[in-house]
Amino acid sequence: MINIGIIGGSGYTGVELLRLLLPRDDVHVSFVSSRANAGTRVDAQFSSLRGFTDLSFSDPDHVATSECDLVFFATPNGTAMQQAPALLDKGVKVVDLSADFRIKDVAEWEKWYSLQHTSPQWIEQAVYGLPEINRDAISGAKLVANPGCYPTTVQLGFLPLLENDLVHTDSLIADAKSGVTGAGRGANVGMLLAEAGDNFKAYGVAGHRHLPEIEQGLRDMTNDSVSLTFTPHLLPVIRGIHSTLYARLKKPASIKAADIQAIYEQRYKDEYFVDVLPAGVFPETRSVRGTNHCRLSVCQPQGRDTVVVMSVEDNLVKGAAGQAIQNMNLMLGLKEQAGLSMPALLP
Amino acid sequence: MINIGIIGGSGYTGVELLRLLLPRDDVHVSFVSSRANAGTRVDAQFSSLRGFTDLSFSDPDHVATSECDLVFFATPNGTAMQQAPALLDKGVKVVDLSADFRIKDVAEWEKWYSLQHTSPQWIEQAVYGLPEINRDAISGAKLVANPGCYPTTVQLGFLPLLENDLVHTDSLIADAKSGVTGAGRGANVGMLLAEAGDNFKAYGVAGHRHLPEIEQGLRDMTNDSVSLTFTPHLLPVIRGIHSTLYARLKKPASIKAADIQAIYEQRYKDEYFVDVLPAGVFPETRSVRGTNHCRLSVCQPQGRDTVVVMSVEDNLVKGAAGQAIQNMNLMLGLKEQAGLSMPALLP
Amino acid sequence: MINIGIIGGSGYTGVELLRLLLPRDDVHVSFVSSRANAGTRVDAQFSSLRGFTDLSFSDPDHVATSECDLVFFATPNGTAMQQAPALLDKGVKVVDLSADFRIKDVAEWEKWYSLQHTSPQWIEQAVYGLPEINRDAISGAKLVANPGCYPTTVQLGFLPLLENDLVHTDSLIADAKSGVTGAGRGANVGMLLAEAGDNFKAYGVAGHRHLPEIEQGLRDMTNDSVSLTFTPHLLPVIRGIHSTLYARLKKPASIKAADIQAIYEQRYKDEYFVDVLPAGVFPETRSVRGTNHCRLSVCQPQGRDTVVVMSVEDNLVKGAAGQAIQNMNLMLGLKEQAGLSMPALLP
Amino acid sequence: MINIGIIGGSGYTGVELLRLLLPRDDVHVSFVSSRANAGTRVDAQFSSLRGFTDLSFSDPDHVATSECDLVFFATPNGTAMQQAPALLDKGVKVVDLSADFRIKDVAEWEKWYSLQHTSPQWIEQAVYGLPEINRDAISGAKLVANPGCYPTTVQLGFLPLLENDLVHTDSLIADAKSGVTGAGRGANVGMLLAEAGDNFKAYGVAGHRHLPEIEQGLRDMTNDSVSLTFTPHLLPVIRGIHSTLYARLKKPASIKAADIQAIYEQRYKDEYFVDVLPAGVFPETRSVRGTNHCRLSVCQPQGRDTVVVMSVEDNLVKGAAGQAIQNMNLMLGLKEQAGLSMPALLP
Repeated sequence: MINIGIIGGSGYTGVELLRLLLPRDDVHVSFVSSRANAGTRVDAQFSSLRGFTDLSFSDPDHVATSECDLVFFATPNGTAMQQAPALLDKGVKVVDLSADFRIKDVAEWEKWYSLQHTSPQWIEQAVYGLPEINRDAISGAKLVANPGCYPTTVQLGFLPLLENDLVHTDSLIADAKSGVTGAGRGANVGMLLAEAGDNFKAYGVAGHRHLPEIEQGLRDMTNDSVSLTFTPHLLPVIRGIHSTLYARLKKPASIKAADIQAIYEQRYKDEYFVDVLPAGVFPETRSVRGTNHCRLSVCQPQGRDTVVVMSVEDNLVKGAAGQAIQNMNLMLGLKEQAGLSMPALLP
Repeated sequence: MINIGIIGGSGYTGVELLRLLLPRDDVHVSFVSSRANAGTRVDAQFSSLRGFTDLSFSDPDHVATSECDLVFFATPNGTAMQQAPALLDKGVKVVDLSADFRIKDVAEWEKWYSLQHTSPQWIEQAVYGLPEINRDAISGAKLVANPGCYPTTVQLGFLPLLENDLVHTDSLIADAKSGVTGAGRGANVGMLLAEAGDNFKAYGVAGHRHLPEIEQGLRDMTNDSVSLTFTPHLLPVIRGIHSTLYARLKKPASIKAADIQAIYEQRYKDEYFVDVLPAGVFPETRSVRGTNHCRLSVCQPQGRDTVVVMSVEDNLVKGAAGQAIQNMNLMLGLKEQAGLSMPALLP
Repeated sequence: MINIGIIGGSGYTGVELLRLLLPRDDVHVSFVSSRANAGTRVDAQFSSLRGFTDLSFSDPDHVATSECDLVFFATPNGTAMQQAPALLDKGVKVVDLSADFRIKDVAEWEKWYSLQHTSPQWIEQAVYGLPEINRDAISGAKLVANPGCYPTTVQLGFLPLLENDLVHTDSLIADAKSGVTGAGRGANVGMLLAEAGDNFKAYGVAGHRHLPEIEQGLRDMTNDSVSLTFTPHLLPVIRGIHSTLYARLKKPASIKAADIQAIYEQRYKDEYFVDVLPAGVFPETRSVRGTNHCRLSVCQPQGRDTVVVMSVEDNLVKGAAGQAIQNMNLMLGLKEQAGLSMPALLP
Repeated sequence: MINIGIIGGSGYTGVELLRLLLPRDDVHVSFVSSRANAGTRVDAQFSSLRGFTDLSFSDPDHVATSECDLVFFATPNGTAMQQAPALLDKGVKVVDLSADFRIKDVAEWEKWYSLQHTSPQWIEQAVYGLPEINRDAISGAKLVANPGCYPTTVQLGFLPLLENDLVHTDSLIADAKSGVTGAGRGANVGMLLAEAGDNFKAYGVAGHRHLPEIEQGLRDMTNDSVSLTFTPHLLPVIRGIHSTLYARLKKPASIKAADIQAIYEQRYKDEYFVDVLPAGVFPETRSVRGTNHCRLSVCQPQGRDTVVVMSVEDNLVKGAAGQAIQNMNLMLGLKEQAGLSMPALLP
């Protein structure tokens, strides 16, 4: 039996890891820690788990991490960089769902996250956990930096365009919309139903932490310089991200919409978790509610020179816990889609 | 391999049957019929099923029902009573999710449903599919009448009180609230997001079709006469029913809240799908979102003589497709919770 | 010009008072205080007020209350009882939107609110601000205790039944559902859109602070003893309360549904803010969204002996700020509906 | 007294005209027609209007339009072009809320609307009803074509950039999101709460009817050629449009964000209904819920060469009925903001 630990299990990514891991019989969750809730039964906090576990939250200072094959960090930014190295040194594999190891340029990370990085030596070794791009490296990794929720949709959406050098990369646009679970489970006036319900707005327009992460990923796809305008918005839905991407074709006269469609289908034909929709069909967030799929559409409106890509995911699954488990499966030699193959909850 | 057919698969209970059945490897869905959508791929209508099926909707007049071990009717009221008998005569088992075989009193049925029953001979043979009450009969049944969504929550909620003769049954009250999927997938102005969203109201107060079904069930639990005031309300949620039940204790002086709590826990201790919450904890609809569980709480406010029971389910699962599959499992000798054991999608 | 002050203006009742008062040209808002936001422009916090005021929040310790004709307390419980007496002594009229002066029995109040009352001498003088019952007393009052949100719907709903001695009052039931603004604007995990959205649950079933307030009001309507079972629920809507009330007729054989309908219409025919709907039409919360109306329906299902009353209001208007202004209008000799006459925002 | 008629009053723009007009004492609504609802009381269909009108819907073939000073067409596309000319010939002024007279190029209109235009002679005379651009022409107009909901936000958002020749107009982008009332009140499966709730998607990406209307308006603001990529999305809110606009600066090196902010503030400083937010503050749809305001923000992320504009309105008010009444006020010589000056319903 494979033993798994979860550090920081009382937030939305924590309960999502449990939702997906507890029903499995090939892995065993050894502990779930939460400093604030130590001693409380997990199913007292999340009644949806009644009948699936007898665990109580552990004190993070007293968990037997070394008995685990792999540990997830579902902690706020700044925790994994302090605690993960000790586990890695003991041979425990780590998937970090926070941002601590996502950005290779330490100075850039420190600027955006307003923290001093305590384990810069592990940044280089960390593998960015987007399996559709880095599958082999993930399979052999000790430490995986699980991508942010927005970055997953944006990178998967732009990838075929950039890999095939089809668009100008100096004025890319990502107009992204996220459900409220993206903000976490902290008490926050702005995320009250009375504030965020029946409402819509942009936020972080001047600069969002996911911008450098996305640009780093996009740069790896092209030889050109990359500049992205990234506008996140808050959607009055619980789960789901919809990113609408815009790019201008380099040679609009020499490519047809059908060609672009074919390029997308070809790029993702062997990717279980990326689904390119038929031409003319656009994705909706509920079509991936609760699942690890990313659904994509690509369109060339009016046959003009701007390409529009729509990319949806469940921010808690492919955007967080599901992708973390996909990475875990690869790191442990399990079937990649183990425990992640179910239809979305629709309606 | 067990072969299953679904007649009337383009509504919400149809897609829910598919969501729960398609990932299973012990049963095979042979066909899904829909007169309006015959020839259309199922996953073109429900993108959540992309990757899980290549089926197209069949014309209901041309489906090989006799090759099936069991057929679900997910049709409007009045269809199964016409079509099910032919299947039953061929030895195909049937679970009817409509109301056609739920009420034993034909005249009563015809009054509430404004139809003439075409198969009254099958009403008597039909077993009412509430496994927590009728498990053995269901296991041996050819035809199961799957309960209505409201009736499931109300009957499971009142059952321990009535079985133990604790309350007056002549003035029971069920104040029930249902999400909008209970109204089905038909185009209906009243169910538009612009009408039903950010809104709440009662409907059918003067008389709802589920009243005679519930009263029939309650009468079977007691020797007293039963009179129920049943008030359904429309909730601005997608899935979920919350029934708040009120009954007056016969002997308030001789029973304590703790006793009632114990009676509930005892009654349901072996029921996988019925979860009695600890005293003082109240159920929420999202705690069963997407699952076949019914969660119950019982409370005696201020120690007075009125008992309050709260009962929640997902109206499309325990209130429809999930319970239908629970019945199928019993009828086919499968494990009762096969394919129905997963945590709720929370948040 | 009439000068008005608002103490505690940064919550939902505060902004609602401003929404309703600022467009008026017969009253002037002199100050809005908020300890936490002192110095901040009001319209920086509530962008909906841009263009309607240049006020900034004042420090509550430095407001010129004595220049006001009337001051509203939109503060948490426990504040008005400390600060209102000084104002009253200076001749400033007060409408308290908190619970400090609602309950005549000091011991009862102290039990439910876990506070020691500092101004018991003012409780007796305070007039309970339900104009449909206490209009004359309100007109002459110095201090008005504005009713709670739930109590307004429940009392207006039961009033005709109790005044006319039609029902047993020892087992009344109020199954009440409130939108999330009822919980105020504080940061609170349970009120996050991710928690309260697409969800429904009961809370405070064992005992809610509005129970003694409602029972006090009901006792004033009858000579019989009163016992109410009050079950509040949390609705995933922003504004709106729907109370479903149940009572058993004393003499069901001697009264018809049409009689009860007539009694309701007669009782409220001169009440501008209480609207009895035609028989068979049920109220919805959105029909009073943003307005000071309470809409009522009464029904006798199946002609049995239980009467069902449905009562809706906007919890921030008739349930709080609107009723407070209705009381202000009466206290200042203005037209009762001044500033409160507009259709609801529907859809 | 000024007499007003409404043709086609049973949809969302019809009830919104009534909500805004009925409380006024300077205009009188003489009739509201609806073929489908002729004879039904208006307040039986829209309970929010109870107490504000005794009107019943009229048969559109029997309304005394010639007694009106002005008639609103709140009809589906294709009706006003047939019926308005007879009214205009009688000297009745007309505001058409449909698309019939919005596009000057008849062939273009016929292509996008799949109808043959029956009154092309009136297209030229019709004034496009965006007062912030066409105020004087509207004041003298007989026939005003009220703008579409999306076009209002997009044109007001781009206007200062184009008037001042700041951006390249050959690759403009409008990523627009609308609440569900934009789709009207027809029964439509896609707009059910069960389908559109807790969900988000794009639609009409390949081509939406508002594209030619917007491009026509933008062309009038510049001497350059205009090409817009317009992507509408469906928001799970009842009211509200949020358009996020993207344009590339012609001379990024020679302009600062503060300059652009100043240009926006200057352009709209005298416009009562257009509110430019302070730098760094972004608009939210609820801040204009129920009001005729458009709120704008402009931002230059990371100081790069792409400008982002955010523009919000209530699609039923500034995007339809409110703007129609603003136009009516101008056409009849009334104060422009008469009946349209109230704070938004927030929360």
